[in-house]
Amino acid sequence: MDGRGSIAPAVSSGLMTAKNDARQVDDGTGGADPKYAELRRRLVEVSDIGAASAVLSWDQTTYMPPGGSGARGRQLATLGRLAHERFTDDAIGHLLDDLRPYEESLSPQSDEASLIRVTRRDYEKAVRVPASFVAEDRAHGAASYDAWVAARPANDFRAVQPFLEKTLDLSLQYAGFFPGYAHVADPLIDDSDPGVTAAEVRRVFDELRGHLVPLVRAITGQLVADDACLRQHYPEQAQWAAGVEAIRLFGYDFERGRQDKSAHPYTTRFAHGDVRITTRVNEHDLRECLFATLHEAGHGLYEQGVAPPLDATPLGSGASSGVHESQSRLWENRVGRSRGFWTFFYPRLQSHFPAQLGSVPLDTFYRAINKVERSLIRVEADEVTYNLHIMIRFGLELDLLEGGLAVKDLPEAWNERYRSDLGITPPDDRDGVLQDVHWYTGRIGGLFQGYTLGNILGAQFFDAAVAEQPDIPAQIERGELNSLLTWLQERLYRHGRKLTTPELVEGITGGPLRSEPLVRYLTRKYGELYELG
Amino acid sequence: MDGRGSIAPAVSSGLMTAKNDARQVDDGTGGADPKYAELRRRLVEVSDIGAASAVLSWDQTTYMPPGGSGARGRQLATLGRLAHERFTDDAIGHLLDDLRPYEESLSPQSDEASLIRVTRRDYEKAVRVPASFVAEDRAHGAASYDAWVAARPANDFRAVQPFLEKTLDLSLQYAGFFPGYAHVADPLIDDSDPGVTAAEVRRVFDELRGHLVPLVRAITGQLVADDACLRQHYPEQAQWAAGVEAIRLFGYDFERGRQDKSAHPYTTRFAHGDVRITTRVNEHDLRECLFATLHEAGHGLYEQGVAPPLDATPLGSGASSGVHESQSRLWENRVGRSRGFWTFFYPRLQSHFPAQLGSVPLDTFYRAINKVERSLIRVEADEVTYNLHIMIRFGLELDLLEGGLAVKDLPEAWNERYRSDLGITPPDDRDGVLQDVHWYTGRIGGLFQGYTLGNILGAQFFDAAVAEQPDIPAQIERGELNSLLTWLQERLYRHGRKLTTPELVEGITGGPLRSEPLVRYLTRKYGELYELG
Repeated sequence: MDGRGSIAPAVSSGLMTAKNDARQVDDGTGGADPKYAELRRRLVEVSDIGAASAVLSWDQTTYMPPGGSGARGRQLATLGRLAHERFTDDAIGHLLDDLRPYEESLSPQSDEASLIRVTRRDYEKAVRVPASFVAEDRAHGAASYDAWVAARPANDFRAVQPFLEKTLDLSLQYAGFFPGYAHVADPLIDDSDPGVTAAEVRRVFDELRGHLVPLVRAITGQLVADDACLRQHYPEQAQWAAGVEAIRLFGYDFERGRQDKSAHPYTTRFAHGDVRITTRVNEHDLRECLFATLHEAGHGLYEQGVAPPLDATPLGSGASSGVHESQSRLWENRVGRSRGFWTFFYPRLQSHFPAQLGSVPLDTFYRAINKVERSLIRVEADEVTYNLHIMIRFGLELDLLEGGLAVKDLPEAWNERYRSDLGITPPDDRDGVLQDVHWYTGRIGGLFQGYTLGNILGAQFFDAAVAEQPDIPAQIERGELNSLLTWLQERLYRHGRKLTTPELVEGITGGPLRSEPLVRYLTRKYGELYELG
Repeated sequence: MDGRGSIAPAVSSGLMTAKNDARQVDDGTGGADPKYAELRRRLVEVSDIGAASAVLSWDQTTYMPPGGSGARGRQLATLGRLAHERFTDDAIGHLLDDLRPYEESLSPQSDEASLIRVTRRDYEKAVRVPASFVAEDRAHGAASYDAWVAARPANDFRAVQPFLEKTLDLSLQYAGFFPGYAHVADPLIDDSDPGVTAAEVRRVFDELRGHLVPLVRAITGQLVADDACLRQHYPEQAQWAAGVEAIRLFGYDFERGRQDKSAHPYTTRFAHGDVRITTRVNEHDLRECLFATLHEAGHGLYEQGVAPPLDATPLGSGASSGVHESQSRLWENRVGRSRGFWTFFYPRLQSHFPAQLGSVPLDTFYRAINKVERSLIRVEADEVTYNLHIMIRFGLELDLLEGGLAVKDLPEAWNERYRSDLGITPPDDRDGVLQDVHWYTGRIGGLFQGYTLGNILGAQFFDAAVAEQPDIPAQIERGELNSLLTWLQERLYRHGRKLTTPELVEGITGGPLRSEPLVRYLTRKYGELYELG
């Protein structure tokens, strides 16, 4: 009963690495151009370092003891630096040059041509940014984040103002590394939504706002839905079980993933076979865990659906922040807040919470989870008002980058927009301009448009799916999600990052980004719910 | 209630690394020689990569979903290769050369001189092994492990024999990279127990065997202790709680660590502030979880006690496998199987298990946890017979390396030693020569001596502690472990890898490695228990 194979650190490396270190990297090239094999080998190495960072970050937010935080920050910095060094190695540039003829000999949609094309795009962006800038930018991001963590509870915008001014300056410098764009925000947007421009986002957002503002006004003129049934005591374990049951039904594969708790829910990918989600639980509001779980499962389904041969390369993840968000929102809202889904699933939810929901009719529950109200906090906003929160932020980002708005005037501008677009004024900066972490991580520009692009794209993709498979809504009412998932896998997920957002939209819908499907969906659903006639 | 700060993978890297990437590496040099600062910076980088590997390995054995395993093996291989590349970089060799005058200007026990000395020792070993050998060795280790995983349940030694023959060949080649040793096993032993030689181990093991064989014979001539009280149903949660309570009492710091479940218990260090242990639970035997927890906590206390300035360098972990095992065994056995400790802790254990232990007297429990019997399986062996299992393996390793024993004859030699030393014959190879993973991970030599060295050293260190602080046994009876822990931290833990095993033994006990304290302890404790008179 002792010496039970326990391995002290000094020894463990020997035993554990002997077991692991020699798994062969499948070069996935099937004997193609040897330079292609070499490129792929290098990219897998960079991806492995990135996956290691992702595991360390996941651990940091789920299980790491408090004492681990200092070293963990440094370890992540080391891995980030290594990955950047390896990816921007001149050898990769030479391989990309040498591989032009090979690339041109292939179909552009082949895995090989796509890998070369997308790697070149990433590489050309990465090498334009000097290492000294990257270091300064990261150091500033960390300092700014720490300042925000202290300033938000203290409601002290002035404490973060100098950080935000430097952030704006660094963001403009960063954009300046990429001359030739039409708008200063374009390179920033391109980082998260490749191929999407400020002009395009503006066009579609303006269209959308024109419909949303009157819709919100009409809804909020009605009686607010009663959500008291959701604000009872819901024990954690039963919430967890109900969420897991729902996302198993969606098709989230627990053999290739898992769910854990973290302060802020997110999705992370370590490999095709290991895509994890997190959620959080509020025992006094059923919505928090349930819809976080459905939302992250949407991200997770997308990542689990990327074709295995793209794994561990620059192609092996979702296409962009907008397309990613389209899937989290589609599964959370279009499915997870639909009457059809709850027709099937509500009895199952009731069986997890007989005391709380046993006597609550489906219709009451359905109205409660679709309650619309003017509110201050983006992350608590409903499906209808949510996009207004995003458009306010996107507009302010452009104003800051264009020079029409100074950082010192940002709180006032923020409050003014909330007044005009949402008809509500933040009582303080804590719940106003300080509410979201994004700008305080060291970047202004490109951080918010993806959320509303996601709502727009989600509506476009869902309509396209139903147009091709009209049974989908009836299947959802029977708890059959498989056709929808298979369609999405086939048309969207499997491509990973092979195609840009515009290419995917064109390929799937036959046209450009359009807000009309989202407007039609919201108008119909909430018109019925609020009897807007 | 949507877009709740969820971050898709493509985006998460931006947000998460901004927050983490810029934490400064404290170079811990206080403005010393700039070449020393450069050396230290490089070593911290290598350590960070090693820590990342350790996190990935920990996740692999605790939470990773089944689908993650293929990629995880490759990711660990990539990190292992990177760490090796960075550590064997010529620049480190040049820095070590250039730093000789600086090193000689310092006290040898200073952190700086120790870092240079120990790094040079590690570096000179690492660079003697060609990269091509490392790759072949690792690939063979992985293949051999896979073969063993299949062969053990099938009781098929012949299936692993060719792997083991290659393992022996590679082990001899490896030893050959280090000419000038007195015995072929010396470089192999030196990897896990620096400064310890085969001759030294032989001397002390022979001494020990001379006392143990008759002691085992005397004990097993008596009635076997009744351990039925330990083999009841013990619910997992209560076992977990009892173990945690015990190791909190030991002083294991959960702010700088945590305990999780894994198939094989182990300890792993990611940083001074993050030293984790794992355990496993058998609901039908109270010993398995409890003593695994105490054992790993011993390793954990050692790692948590290494001085913070040594963190993230080659000095920042326990000194050797033998010294490490001395601490796991000291806390598990010398404390955790002592009458004194249970005088204090047994009522607490009973309160976790009133139904199972409420009416079991302390003496019955104490006898049960110290039951001695001749058995086949090392990891289930008691404190007295355990060392015989180790000495059999160590002797066979030397015979194989010296050429006096062929791999094909190993099963027979194994069985013969069990017959002569333990008086028991394995019914098959599964519980004989195939029982331990060690040889099947790709190395023969240096893998087993540490366990018994640990028992010997643990007795020497405990005696030294009590000689200096005679109150310790009485304190243990009152549940006061703090003096013992503080003494161990001060005399042993804080030094990390600054000193070799022989240096530590000399420094703490004033003499060499001696089996007499262990023999005296076992003879007295088991003489009383079994009334050997």
